Amino acid sequence: MRLLVLLTCLLAGCLAQKPHPCESPPLLTGALTVSTQNEKLWTYGRYVYDALGQRIRLMEMGTYENKSVTYDLLALYREATVYEISYHNRTCKKKPLKTNFQPLAIPKDATLLAQVVLGSSSGPGEGLLVNTWTGDLPDKTGKYINTVTEFGCIPIATSYQTSEYGWAVTSFYNNVMGIEDPGLLNPPDFCTDAEMMEPTDFLSLFHGKHWQSS
Amino acid sequence: MRLLVLLTCLLAGCLAQKPHPCESPPLLTGALTVSTQNEKLWTYGRYVYDALGQRIRLMEMGTYENKSVTYDLLALYREATVYEISYHNRTCKKKPLKTNFQPLAIPKDATLLAQVVLGSSSGPGEGLLVNTWTGDLPDKTGKYINTVTEFGCIPIATSYQTSEYGWAVTSFYNNVMGIEDPGLLNPPDFCTDAEMMEPTDFLSLFHGKHWQSS
Repeated sequence: MRLLVLLTCLLAGCLAQKPHPCESPPLLTGALTVSTQNEKLWTYGRYVYDALGQRIRLMEMGTYENKSVTYDLLALYREATVYEISYHNRTCKKKPLKTNFQPLAIPKDATLLAQVVLGSSSGPGEGLLVNTWTGDLPDKTGKYINTVTEFGCIPIATSYQTSEYGWAVTSFYNNVMGIEDPGLLNPPDFCTDAEMMEPTDFLSLFHGKHWQSS
Repeated sequence: MRLLVLLTCLLAGCLAQKPHPCESPPLLTGALTVSTQNEKLWTYGRYVYDALGQRIRLMEMGTYENKSVTYDLLALYREATVYEISYHNRTCKKKPLKTNFQPLAIPKDATLLAQVVLGSSSGPGEGLLVNTWTGDLPDKTGKYINTVTEFGCIPIATSYQTSEYGWAVTSFYNNVMGIEDPGLLNPPDFCTDAEMMEPTDFLSLFHGKHWQSS
């Protein structure tokens, strides 16, 4: 009987727990779309995320200002370098990364907007408990809104305000824990001789305020 | 051994099944947000959906053209009537509903854009399998994009193009099967004497291309 009471209290305690800011798993592989409110940019593709080695690979295709674009980026934060890779041409551009690695996480000072169930809690496999957080961007230029799963802190979507594009939204899906292909986090052989170039600004939309780079 | 092979085949058969257009449960209660790409409208609130009785209740608050707005609508399609209810003032506007009831469903001629896992399939409670469908709006004025859960056909989001607002997005969450409060689907007593008025157009954003009304 006592055990039952104890279990009930524990369960009630767990259910009553308020959501807390959290850090996503350090190794993730999955897919994402990036889109902007003004429809200038729409891309989708795959990502590989390694918070332990501070490395991110993004392979995206889509449209930018009504033109088809493809991006294949490898950001190595420890080496302060981002590679723009073209397997088709076997070429590589090497550019400086000026910011520190930002792990995928809900900042500690974020404000909880809502905890909701996507879909339904009425049947198994029909719903997903998620938490949506908001706060000011580090440079105070606007707000961010980030949604992660309650269980696992898996990213669902991150949105933030930009002056040029309106809201920029990154949606994550098909995420799995771990790195499916570690080779994707090393520069290809034809990148070895690439010389460091000047940074460009456009890529900041991908690295974003979350995955900051220059 | 034969049983094992049979079971394996059955399982593979289930997993290999392509997503099919589906109809959402006939009785749903939940919450939704409605927003438009041009930011003219942003509302959130609760809904009650009864496809058996062809009745919908929407209780929303938010902003329209930077002004606070609240809506409390009861659409009775069998009576071709929509009530705009104000409990605060105990007033009721009764307006004609000129379109037929449209159940929440993926149209049979929809095209599957993608089946994805929101969140992750790596751990229990961390992911949700959803299907995203697209097609032309009935009046050919643009596209719609609808996302529902694979299990249960629970609505996640419906988007459609409008000329005035850009994309209009309705996101559903905290959905439960059934009607929590059937009383919400009957007009309040102070509506009894309301006289039929002329229709207005604004509400079409809520009733939308999915839940069409005049």
